[in-house]
Amino acid sequence: VAKRLEKFKTTIFTQMSSLAIEHGAINLGQGFPNFDGPEFVKEAAIQAIKDGKNQYARGFGVPELNKAIADRFHKDTGLTVHPDQEITVTSGCTEAIAATILGLINPGDEVIVFAPFYDSYEATLSMAGAKVTGITLCPPDFALPIHELKSKISKNTRAILINTPHNPTGKMFTREELDQIASLCIENDVLVFSDEVYDKLAFEMDHISIASLPGMYERTVTMNSLGKTFSLTGWKIGWAIAPKHLIWGVKQAHSYLTFATSTPMQHASVAALRAPDSYYEELRKDYQAKKDILVEGLKSVGFKVYPSSGTYFVVVDHTPFGLPDDISFCEFLIKEVGVVAIPTSVFYLDPNEGKNLVRFTFCKDEETLKNAVGRMKERL
Amino acid sequence: VAKRLEKFKTTIFTQMSSLAIEHGAINLGQGFPNFDGPEFVKEAAIQAIKDGKNQYARGFGVPELNKAIADRFHKDTGLTVHPDQEITVTSGCTEAIAATILGLINPGDEVIVFAPFYDSYEATLSMAGAKVTGITLCPPDFALPIHELKSKISKNTRAILINTPHNPTGKMFTREELDQIASLCIENDVLVFSDEVYDKLAFEMDHISIASLPGMYERTVTMNSLGKTFSLTGWKIGWAIAPKHLIWGVKQAHSYLTFATSTPMQHASVAALRAPDSYYEELRKDYQAKKDILVEGLKSVGFKVYPSSGTYFVVVDHTPFGLPDDISFCEFLIKEVGVVAIPTSVFYLDPNEGKNLVRFTFCKDEETLKNAVGRMKERL
Ligand SMILES: CSCCC(=O)C(=O)O
Ligand SMILES: CSCCC(=O)C(=O)O
Repeated sequence: VAKRLEKFKTTIFTQMSSLAIEHGAINLGQGFPNFDGPEFVKEAAIQAIKDGKNQYARGFGVPELNKAIADRFHKDTGLTVHPDQEITVTSGCTEAIAATILGLINPGDEVIVFAPFYDSYEATLSMAGAKVTGITLCPPDFALPIHELKSKISKNTRAILINTPHNPTGKMFTREELDQIASLCIENDVLVFSDEVYDKLAFEMDHISIASLPGMYERTVTMNSLGKTFSLTGWKIGWAIAPKHLIWGVKQAHSYLTFATSTPMQHASVAALRAPDSYYEELRKDYQAKKDILVEGLKSVGFKVYPSSGTYFVVVDHTPFGLPDDISFCEFLIKEVGVVAIPTSVFYLDPNEGKNLVRFTFCKDEETLKNAVGRMKERL
Repeated sequence: VAKRLEKFKTTIFTQMSSLAIEHGAINLGQGFPNFDGPEFVKEAAIQAIKDGKNQYARGFGVPELNKAIADRFHKDTGLTVHPDQEITVTSGCTEAIAATILGLINPGDEVIVFAPFYDSYEATLSMAGAKVTGITLCPPDFALPIHELKSKISKNTRAILINTPHNPTGKMFTREELDQIASLCIENDVLVFSDEVYDKLAFEMDHISIASLPGMYERTVTMNSLGKTFSLTGWKIGWAIAPKHLIWGVKQAHSYLTFATSTPMQHASVAALRAPDSYYEELRKDYQAKKDILVEGLKSVGFKVYPSSGTYFVVVDHTPFGLPDDISFCEFLIKEVGVVAIPTSVFYLDPNEGKNLVRFTFCKDEETLKNAVGRMKERL
């Protein structure tokens, strides 16, 4: 294995999902729904396949999808972007992240990430030869430590990677925090790479795209995907939105990482993104109910549950149950309780952090959530 | 844009396919069929979507697909590989190439490529910081210059990238040539990355996977995809096959480039790879007829056509028509004749090479091929 990937292990999601199958455990680990995506989107995919939309798509996206993304982004943020010149469709948001980092970051550039973070960030930054600077968001509220951020920005800082709503904590960056980040970025000529795949799963406050703050669009790559919003995580449709001078790098990296993304799935994504507002309201309502079940359940089991404002995740403190760290807690939970959670220490630069936290997802039907809580009540 | 991608332009395929649309020209450029993939494979995709196979696949491939790939590989090469431990499914062969190179090549490693080559090779090698050494295959037969290869292998050579059947020339590496490459690789402890996406489009000789030669499996990453064999280039299903010690790097890079590949399309790919032998015979017969139309047509137009043994491409010498180079010939062809071809100089390390050659594809229905020939006869 090449040095750029030497220190990374099998992703925790692969590890945990295969343990879930092996042990017949209820999987509240990896964030994929155990219910299906909407019929109208599935129908659109079927229609596209039948209609013979099965050959190479335009590399940066089928024109109808780029347009639908631009329209949705306009609706969400008020920003007007050129569908063909400021958007690149990718094979999931993971590829958008990889293409953004490999397309824009040079070896030695400093990039700031907030820990805990989705594991691909560190690996992709390593592939780009970036110097990664971590800033830890701490419980209970995972607030932005603005003074630390300020102190860690140097003249070599090229970008800050943010994720809001934030996986795994459920934290949402407030307008005030985003304003503070924006000021620092403008002052120091720093880019923002903003992963917003959970933007439609915002429960406690409105989601804000940092690109929509004054002076920020020109220095932001906004990344999103279809998977979480439409319960179709397996379709792997993502995208990046950025001004021309930034999207060029993303597009070029994408050209040589995957060249293009599944054509029929892109056509179906058009139907998805054209969904009426009621779809999003319904989604949030459904998820609110699931969230209530899991959060109340986890509390009743005896966990200390940290408030989650968005995403379909909650983190809890497992220490009341007396296991030494998150990894051994998750092992115990799989083998003795029959439930899978994700240990969070793998999401920090320093694996000694996050040892008291584990993440549960509530993207499962209510019965599954209740069963998982039941098992924990009985066996923990 | 990051330095690693600075020298690369918009891919020639994107450029040419958009010019084709703009000028209403017949597109014999980018290699995608203008006919549809087989009904039974499309039906399998539709069934998978209906069956709710729409969430994240296992990162390195849905188990049934890994198994089908292993079985197919066994049938083709006689090699027995472990479906889960020696195969990684990727988002097209382009991603397999990127994951192989980023997963196994360190900055400064030397990698040998044969020019002309598919453009992603050079870009991905640049992303990995490799030192690229080019060896030119020359008309008329694009034979392996074994002495040059020998002289260019050094103690820093980490890998040789081969592509057989070869895009753009249609050359197929003979057993003798592969034996020579194999000996050199074994002697000098060099890996082979073998792109075999056109393996089922072999007309003049049998395709040989270099992995099947004695001592070679352990040092080879074999890459393939669904697109060309099943006329579904837009589905973007590819894979890499390699022994455990090599596939690990590929798998890790893949984990962080795209994480996983479209689940319903993977399920459909199982049906495809389980196709009876008659499917492949039919495919080859159909393509042989198309090839005959195009090759005879191009000859009758006055091109010097170089023999193509495999792929769905032929290269021709355009100099009889008096234009100064391949780019200006292709421009003329689009604007004045209404046909798109691909200039080949973009596939060389030195853009002064290949200026007399252009590539045509015959993955189009017979009428389209005849019309293209008709336009050229009339207007060239
Ligand atoms: C590949 S898992 C992608 C992110 C997610 O769903 C998770 O964090 O569980
Ligand atoms: C992205 S194009 C892939 C290869 C091919 O089809 C071509 O060379 O035209």
